[in-house]
Amino acid sequence: MTEGHIEVDYRLQSPEGALAGRVEALLLEQTVELPRSALRSSFVRDRLVGRVLGTEAVGPGDFRVTLAQPELATGDDPAQLLNVLFGNCSLQPDVQLEDVRLSPRIRQALGGPRFGIAGIRRLVGATGRALTCSVLKPIGLTNQESAQLCLNLSLGGLDIVKDDHGHADHSFGPFGERVRLCLKATEEAAESTGRRTLYVPNLTGSPATVLLQARLAREAGVGAVMVSPMLIGLPFLVDLASELGMPILAHPAFGGAQRVSPLALLGRLFPAFGADAVIFPSYGGRFSYSRAECGLIAGALTAPAGGSPPCFPVPAGGMKVANMGEALGFYGMETILLIGGSLLDAPDAGSLISRARQFVDAVARHPYTR
Amino acid sequence: MTEGHIEVDYRLQSPEGALAGRVEALLLEQTVELPRSALRSSFVRDRLVGRVLGTEAVGPGDFRVTLAQPELATGDDPAQLLNVLFGNCSLQPDVQLEDVRLSPRIRQALGGPRFGIAGIRRLVGATGRALTCSVLKPIGLTNQESAQLCLNLSLGGLDIVKDDHGHADHSFGPFGERVRLCLKATEEAAESTGRRTLYVPNLTGSPATVLLQARLAREAGVGAVMVSPMLIGLPFLVDLASELGMPILAHPAFGGAQRVSPLALLGRLFPAFGADAVIFPSYGGRFSYSRAECGLIAGALTAPAGGSPPCFPVPAGGMKVANMGEALGFYGMETILLIGGSLLDAPDAGSLISRARQFVDAVARHPYTR
Repeated sequence: MTEGHIEVDYRLQSPEGALAGRVEALLLEQTVELPRSALRSSFVRDRLVGRVLGTEAVGPGDFRVTLAQPELATGDDPAQLLNVLFGNCSLQPDVQLEDVRLSPRIRQALGGPRFGIAGIRRLVGATGRALTCSVLKPIGLTNQESAQLCLNLSLGGLDIVKDDHGHADHSFGPFGERVRLCLKATEEAAESTGRRTLYVPNLTGSPATVLLQARLAREAGVGAVMVSPMLIGLPFLVDLASELGMPILAHPAFGGAQRVSPLALLGRLFPAFGADAVIFPSYGGRFSYSRAECGLIAGALTAPAGGSPPCFPVPAGGMKVANMGEALGFYGMETILLIGGSLLDAPDAGSLISRARQFVDAVARHPYTR
Repeated sequence: MTEGHIEVDYRLQSPEGALAGRVEALLLEQTVELPRSALRSSFVRDRLVGRVLGTEAVGPGDFRVTLAQPELATGDDPAQLLNVLFGNCSLQPDVQLEDVRLSPRIRQALGGPRFGIAGIRRLVGATGRALTCSVLKPIGLTNQESAQLCLNLSLGGLDIVKDDHGHADHSFGPFGERVRLCLKATEEAAESTGRRTLYVPNLTGSPATVLLQARLAREAGVGAVMVSPMLIGLPFLVDLASELGMPILAHPAFGGAQRVSPLALLGRLFPAFGADAVIFPSYGGRFSYSRAECGLIAGALTAPAGGSPPCFPVPAGGMKVANMGEALGFYGMETILLIGGSLLDAPDAGSLISRARQFVDAVARHPYTR
């Protein structure tokens, strides 16, 4: 790390002859936004302008460019950090944000995961294996129907049952009632299974709405919540993580809207801004991430830079009970496996519960090597 | 409009033979996220699943797909609206969000521009011509230096002087002091010009920080503010617009360039969520938008659907004083022209003031035809 700087890797498409000028423009655009000739203050020239650490050809006209930008430019602020990383240059189609290495000072200002893997394991009470998770969907179910589904999945012995990230405070399923009924369902299931499933409601809306939902959730006795940081606004995650006092599961919805690599956004920024577990589309499902990308995301979450607490990878998106062995071999025990459709298309409650048990057993019995 | 629905246009890359299946998957992904076979509730099947309004070939393997999605699925919530528009499918690289037509109910729930063109013209006190705007940059100036720049630009007679969107509550230029000094500068300039420039500070940070800045700004007597909705979180704009009681100028930073069209994001969603004026990179500058795209954005802002108040287009990004005539011919009088670098690279205060006057005069004298 360059002292007092954050390091940013971009992919940049440029003719080789124009590269030096294009890199200089990118460097200036992200902090001072003026050509050097217009910088009349020596403080600005010396302290606000970053430097180019390297450029590397990846292919013809395709370069990896590493910049060191002064942490001073971020003002220790989460929104301004995003602006320095990918504010204006997000509007330039020849640039993609590929990776980022935050400085200790910025990591501390953001706060990072408050609970991480250890905190979620404590809540769930499971060690030495991966965790199992499923989801209450589709939206449009009444709260009574969602709670019945929550009961069945809990009877199947899942560690975590979460709301769909499309669950808002809908007229057909108000937030507060859903939370109360689902908590009651996990309590009821625990009487027969002997172990309580962690129910994780989705918080969504403008900050005023989300803070209200957080209060309702806390008062109802919820142990962890989910948010979609790109829908609610990534800097808001910083406020939430510092106020909530419970683990936050982050969903990637709306996260592909920009040309930010999944590694940078989901693997680096989501945990740095306060997520304790990060959902991402696993390879082979209905989304596009490759096995290599998923490995990079999971690696960044479980082995973060600079002594931040490790954070749970939550592969999802078309995973199937039948493939658990392969997924567990790839992700290892420090993972929460999230299965939705492959459980929820069970024709009736009995087969749903037994599929959930099959999922739970496969995860419990897997011969973990890491 | 389809009663009770929002209409969404996507561009979709798909082999023609696979199109029907791909469109069905897209339709379901954005609300229920399950195949129809897993939808056991008739309410869900009838009320939460949208329908395909049309598909149109744009090129080989390239289609425009129009979906009607039930407004019920959005729960009248800004974050869940984004999720229905481009939540999960933002993670699928074959889909781009091209345009959106919100229903009257959703437009009302979001609130739209509270001031729009009329409100900003009232504040500035100018009719029958375009408005002039410049910017305090670079970041790294002391607040005294920023205020001096604000004074010079105000002496040049500009209608609006705004913070750079990179101005946060930096150690080298704290927010509250900057606001006080810049307001004082516009007051001082008004004593010699007879007309007060509108100073627009940038609010940025997590919601807690931004709300604090908004309070400071209001107490200091600020008349309008700027935010970057994609940095602070688009749904937060809804809270801000309903609480602020002053016009909001929206900056496109972090708005991406590829997967959500500028028309949809800047032309439709920014004003629907509460912006009164929207900055966008004008054609021919250092960003990539074409003349046609800029025309679409400006048209969507000034002639919004469904009786919403018109909102100011603010073309920016490398515009030059020398090109004012061309820009004014293209954008017409309902526009705020934002010029930064082309003023700020003036070698001294005297030439800065005279260049600003030249800008102001060109805008005042232009023979507007619309």
